[in-house]
Amino acid sequence: MIINGPNLNLLGSREPDIYGTGRFEDYLEKLRAEFPAIQIDYFQSNIEGAIIDKLQESGNDYDGVILNAGGYTHTSVAIGDAVRAIGTPVVEVHISNIFAREDFRQISYVAPAARGSISGFGPDSYRLALISLLK
Amino acid sequence: MIINGPNLNLLGSREPDIYGTGRFEDYLEKLRAEFPAIQIDYFQSNIEGAIIDKLQESGNDYDGVILNAGGYTHTSVAIGDAVRAIGTPVVEVHISNIFAREDFRQISYVAPAARGSISGFGPDSYRLALISLLK
Amino acid sequence: MIINGPNLNLLGSREPDIYGTGRFEDYLEKLRAEFPAIQIDYFQSNIEGAIIDKLQESGNDYDGVILNAGGYTHTSVAIGDAVRAIGTPVVEVHISNIFAREDFRQISYVAPAARGSISGFGPDSYRLALISLLK
Amino acid sequence: MIINGPNLNLLGSREPDIYGTGRFEDYLEKLRAEFPAIQIDYFQSNIEGAIIDKLQESGNDYDGVILNAGGYTHTSVAIGDAVRAIGTPVVEVHISNIFAREDFRQISYVAPAARGSISGFGPDSYRLALISLLK
Amino acid sequence: MIINGPNLNLLGSREPDIYGTGRFEDYLEKLRAEFPAIQIDYFQSNIEGAIIDKLQESGNDYDGVILNAGGYTHTSVAIGDAVRAIGTPVVEVHISNIFAREDFRQISYVAPAARGSISGFGPDSYRLALISLLK
Amino acid sequence: MIINGPNLNLLGSREPDIYGTGRFEDYLEKLRAEFPAIQIDYFQSNIEGAIIDKLQESGNDYDGVILNAGGYTHTSVAIGDAVRAIGTPVVEVHISNIFAREDFRQISYVAPAARGSISGFGPDSYRLALISLLK
Amino acid sequence: MIINGPNLNLLGSREPDIYGTGRFEDYLEKLRAEFPAIQIDYFQSNIEGAIIDKLQESGNDYDGVILNAGGYTHTSVAIGDAVRAIGTPVVEVHISNIFAREDFRQISYVAPAARGSISGFGPDSYRLALISLLK
Amino acid sequence: MIINGPNLNLLGSREPDIYGTGRFEDYLEKLRAEFPAIQIDYFQSNIEGAIIDKLQESGNDYDGVILNAGGYTHTSVAIGDAVRAIGTPVVEVHISNIFAREDFRQISYVAPAARGSISGFGPDSYRLALISLLK
Amino acid sequence: MIINGPNLNLLGSREPDIYGTGRFEDYLEKLRAEFPAIQIDYFQSNIEGAIIDKLQESGNDYDGVILNAGGYTHTSVAIGDAVRAIGTPVVEVHISNIFAREDFRQISYVAPAARGSISGFGPDSYRLALISLLK
Amino acid sequence: MIINGPNLNLLGSREPDIYGTGRFEDYLEKLRAEFPAIQIDYFQSNIEGAIIDKLQESGNDYDGVILNAGGYTHTSVAIGDAVRAIGTPVVEVHISNIFAREDFRQISYVAPAARGSISGFGPDSYRLALISLLK
Amino acid sequence: MIINGPNLNLLGSREPDIYGTGRFEDYLEKLRAEFPAIQIDYFQSNIEGAIIDKLQESGNDYDGVILNAGGYTHTSVAIGDAVRAIGTPVVEVHISNIFAREDFRQISYVAPAARGSISGFGPDSYRLALISLLK
Amino acid sequence: MIINGPNLNLLGSREPDIYGTGRFEDYLEKLRAEFPAIQIDYFQSNIEGAIIDKLQESGNDYDGVILNAGGYTHTSVAIGDAVRAIGTPVVEVHISNIFAREDFRQISYVAPAARGSISGFGPDSYRLALISLLK
Repeated sequence: MIINGPNLNLLGSREPDIYGTGRFEDYLEKLRAEFPAIQIDYFQSNIEGAIIDKLQESGNDYDGVILNAGGYTHTSVAIGDAVRAIGTPVVEVHISNIFAREDFRQISYVAPAARGSISGFGPDSYRLALISLLK
Repeated sequence: MIINGPNLNLLGSREPDIYGTGRFEDYLEKLRAEFPAIQIDYFQSNIEGAIIDKLQESGNDYDGVILNAGGYTHTSVAIGDAVRAIGTPVVEVHISNIFAREDFRQISYVAPAARGSISGFGPDSYRLALISLLK
Repeated sequence: MIINGPNLNLLGSREPDIYGTGRFEDYLEKLRAEFPAIQIDYFQSNIEGAIIDKLQESGNDYDGVILNAGGYTHTSVAIGDAVRAIGTPVVEVHISNIFAREDFRQISYVAPAARGSISGFGPDSYRLALISLLK
Repeated sequence: MIINGPNLNLLGSREPDIYGTGRFEDYLEKLRAEFPAIQIDYFQSNIEGAIIDKLQESGNDYDGVILNAGGYTHTSVAIGDAVRAIGTPVVEVHISNIFAREDFRQISYVAPAARGSISGFGPDSYRLALISLLK
Repeated sequence: MIINGPNLNLLGSREPDIYGTGRFEDYLEKLRAEFPAIQIDYFQSNIEGAIIDKLQESGNDYDGVILNAGGYTHTSVAIGDAVRAIGTPVVEVHISNIFAREDFRQISYVAPAARGSISGFGPDSYRLALISLLK
Repeated sequence: MIINGPNLNLLGSREPDIYGTGRFEDYLEKLRAEFPAIQIDYFQSNIEGAIIDKLQESGNDYDGVILNAGGYTHTSVAIGDAVRAIGTPVVEVHISNIFAREDFRQISYVAPAARGSISGFGPDSYRLALISLLK
Repeated sequence: MIINGPNLNLLGSREPDIYGTGRFEDYLEKLRAEFPAIQIDYFQSNIEGAIIDKLQESGNDYDGVILNAGGYTHTSVAIGDAVRAIGTPVVEVHISNIFAREDFRQISYVAPAARGSISGFGPDSYRLALISLLK
Repeated sequence: MIINGPNLNLLGSREPDIYGTGRFEDYLEKLRAEFPAIQIDYFQSNIEGAIIDKLQESGNDYDGVILNAGGYTHTSVAIGDAVRAIGTPVVEVHISNIFAREDFRQISYVAPAARGSISGFGPDSYRLALISLLK
Repeated sequence: MIINGPNLNLLGSREPDIYGTGRFEDYLEKLRAEFPAIQIDYFQSNIEGAIIDKLQESGNDYDGVILNAGGYTHTSVAIGDAVRAIGTPVVEVHISNIFAREDFRQISYVAPAARGSISGFGPDSYRLALISLLK
Repeated sequence: MIINGPNLNLLGSREPDIYGTGRFEDYLEKLRAEFPAIQIDYFQSNIEGAIIDKLQESGNDYDGVILNAGGYTHTSVAIGDAVRAIGTPVVEVHISNIFAREDFRQISYVAPAARGSISGFGPDSYRLALISLLK
Repeated sequence: MIINGPNLNLLGSREPDIYGTGRFEDYLEKLRAEFPAIQIDYFQSNIEGAIIDKLQESGNDYDGVILNAGGYTHTSVAIGDAVRAIGTPVVEVHISNIFAREDFRQISYVAPAARGSISGFGPDSYRLALISLLK
Repeated sequence: MIINGPNLNLLGSREPDIYGTGRFEDYLEKLRAEFPAIQIDYFQSNIEGAIIDKLQESGNDYDGVILNAGGYTHTSVAIGDAVRAIGTPVVEVHISNIFAREDFRQISYVAPAARGSISGFGPDSYRLALISLLK
């Protein structure tokens, strides 16, 4: 299960020098083609609570979650709590290198609760997270 | 009216050494049984804005609100504003003793706006809040 | 497009010494009457993600957005990211003078991403923002 | 055992808009009348060390302690240590809502060591604490 | 009365990518032409105390003051005190969006004392301020 | 009533380059000689709570209190609360210029609660405080 | 020599609940009448540098300086340096109790350089400073 | 002279995984047996001011003081001042390694005033302090 | 090229509940076996400057660098500068999830200079980094 | 052009152990003698705004400016803005080593805007700055 | 094993009012003479990584380590990690009382990882550490 | 003696828009040619401890040291201690204007210990430092 947070539905058109020019759906197709044995579901929402809802569901239905909480990464105690609350391993990903950006992006409430964290590899961050969960 | 915030729907299965092993619905039944003269309605949502919506409604329809805003307690100026905006008294409750936990749980945007605050008594925090509103 | 954030649907009844006694809908009518040549649409939500959804839509459909993100102004990296993500100019407004209020209202995640910021003129802040977009 | 800290002997005359106009002794009588089955002893001191002495004694002699450490709440590591050092459960109470007051009252060295914390209900905070200990 | 602070006499030649290329005097002419019914006087000084002197005078002689205190905005308790000291409403303006600039420009000692604040609209910030005072 | 806090009983022998070489009792005699019409009582204690006790008594028995809380000045919320709790005007004094000393002496919990504050004039600080109360 | 800083020329009309309703010139007359043997000169300026100029002159021409630097107290390293640079003793005064006001008024660059500091006694702060210099 | 601060009378029963299971009196006997040539007096109090009183006395009567100020270590400017005020060398000791504990235990007002500091060796910290004073 | 910083030569014996029980050399063999087409060189040093030396060399000799700077991650501006100074892409890895550990491990001087960052997957963090460089 | 800020007119008499015993005018003569081919003009003012005025003029009339803003270095955003606003290179100098002095002298609003910064060489700091501009 | 960090090879000539006038080697001889039954080896290096190397070796070869990490005490996460990584007990020593010195010397990355900490007794700090390890 | 710290061996190829395109060795030749009467030795190392070693040696063998500690400037208490420990005057230089760069480059542990500091003049910073030492 891949969960994307706010504004990640705009990938491809949003600030392309930071986030690249490809749409996430196109990338997802490539990922599914590379890993045909795995069922990769996808969910995107701009609503913090909907992400929490989906995390709670995924705790029952999936073997692993790849979570890019977008701007909520830096402000949401509640998403961090949801990651802690479920048993399924969660891997945090970021497309851009958040450590090279604004100060307020240096804090993550998701990372301490997640199994691990991957950032800065463009959409390939998702692929690395998927490989990490395969092991 | 009892309003519960994010991840409180997982009570009983979520981090049981912090939050205990009972489901909130079971506790609610006991509470209703102990206070049969009072109508105790219950609302839970993982969505910050839905909590605000319900607070605004409760301002008109109820004599008091017991609010456990969960992770939003520590980050939501907007919920604090909603508590300030309505006339009905609001009591803040927490199941765990938030003062004995992480630094980011030491800040509450709800508490300064609420009538009072009760934390650390497990589900009994709700019962104490109810008694406080009866007076 | 005017987008109002949490608790702004309570204008007129909410803390009137800070926010005034008029309802926003009444003010909106006056604004439309004063600027008949302009189509002024209005959206209010208490849900952070719904505000982001509407900002993303407005990026395609409108020539300008007037945004009062209410309490989310001070906590939402995600709304700030949405403002950055869309091409349409966004003007931040506040009814009260947020600089004369609590410390936590001194931080705005919207302002650095917006074109400009107007605060403290009561509902007239919206009118000034509209005039600024007309130019 | 109820232990009150500095300046709480002035209740009734001290800043009545914050602390109310009733004397604590009168309130205590009502409490004893409401809970005749329980022995409620009372101790007040303006001396930090005398409060620690009494906490240590109470650790042996009582089933529970209700502690309002007054101004020492915010500065006394030593009282917090005493609460940790004894086995008897301690409940922290405050008459006023300390979260709605000065910044220096936002820190409590007692709360992390106590079982739970109740603040903002006027003298009723003591009654709620007593009920919490009965369970 | 429009009062401009330090370095605003260099508008047109100073860091044009931030402040634009037009001279303030030219803009002032256009403003007077647009609002012929209003007497718009103008004062610029690089001296903090001269700005305070002029604010004090304006408190007696004018119906409103538009103040761009430039670099003094972020450091001058004394100008903030002058704004508080006079009865005439003062509107704070900034040409650039100060919220998108250096950290030390995020603090304003003028804003909490002023009626309202407008920033980021280029020289049009003055026009909006004038309109706000007309109401 | 003059109340002196911890270590002020050592005046004359304690760090004489900061606090001078005279004993406080000798100074007190001179003060009484200079103001024969006024009854000047004196109390010194190293115990925070004893200072609070004396402040509470003085609230009933004296027309004014001169308080040098010594090291407790910088740490005692409880003494500050006692000053607020009593009606009698309290003037804070310090022998040394505390503003020219360590960082931790820059914070006073007494000053915001007191009528006024005098520091740096050696024992003459008490004389100035006495004159201020005479008015 | 008495030196008054910015906005102190407005005493009597400026925020009278903080600063009182008397004009400083009237108070000065009373002071001169009470101390006929002493030549009391007076200087007020809103210009930081003019206050420094006058401090430097006073270092040669007067036996003592009473300085109320107003808003510059909290921001002017340069005035603090001037006080350090001259040999004449300088006493800092404030009309209001600055410790009971905004956070930014808690810092004084004058106090560490001055001989002593007196605040909170209304215009009588000047009289106490004068007496302190007579000794 | 050995002076122990608050809660150190509970050694042996208080949080034994941090402070060990032996009573301090038993340890003292062993210490006296090991150093028969030295008179080792002992004082314990939970009262900050009583510790200051004893420090002042010890300044006259003893060749050295071993001080474990317990929780007051981290909050008491007044005890630090007392250590500075007396001529006798004072050695600060702690049973536990305070550097491996909570943040608020990282600040010591005693250490800068003491001759030296020893922490983390269990009751042996006192023995090392004694040896240090013998030299 | 894989570069390991201080104490990483102790893997397998050092704090095994954090870092696991396998030796890094054994893991390296598996990695070489899985990616036979790639030349994987390895360097470990406890000396900050030796790591910088090796980074500079690697900038000429290798197509990519995997860097685990260990404890220097959080303190070394100089290693961060070296990463910036060379053209070869550098990927930061950590075995443990540094975001779930002490505060001082939340700062990385390497991450802002690196291409991306991977932490929390045990030794598999190196494998993911290698895959990221293959693309 | 050499511009000196507040209190630098007192050089020779002001705190000679920090600033030396020579008058600046004497030093200036030596400098002119050593560099006869260069026209060295000199301006000193205690008024922040006058320094800004002179910086703006110098932007047109001189090939380089040597600026010692004295106490304004650490507080004046406006002087920093003036340095940024003019095209002529500005070199910041300090007579004393400001890094070895008070905390508030560690911040410079001039340095980030200047070409370079020289401090600690006594009056020779000016000579080094002049040489730097000759290149 | 005694390990000394940077600049401790200069003892005797370096800032003698802080560190004393004796050479460390001379002191070492006396220590060996006093404890002939113990093998006391000694290592000094200015290189952070060489200290880590030696700590790792000592973890295998010695029964205890006395570590004075000098300036690295306050900046080296890596040395703290090495102390944690080895099984041998490590005692931190300092010649001077670091708590009475600059702010940046108040932080120790070694102390939380060490068994205990001794500072301020001159070279005798080493002797006390040795005695502590003998037990 | 010129001592260069980490990554300064890469001058000419490293981030040329910040550090310029010339190699340091070439610049050194020009410097030696300009000052033939002076013996200018040169040392560069990426190892913090090797820089300390060289500083200690230079304390005996040279009349002055020019030190660019590179990235260690901002983190090395130990290098600052070495500068304090030796008698030879040390001048700190930086090629870039460190005050116009990242926040973590605003702190220098070298500057307070050095005689003076020169930054921002490109390689000419070394030449100015040399001239300063000639005097």
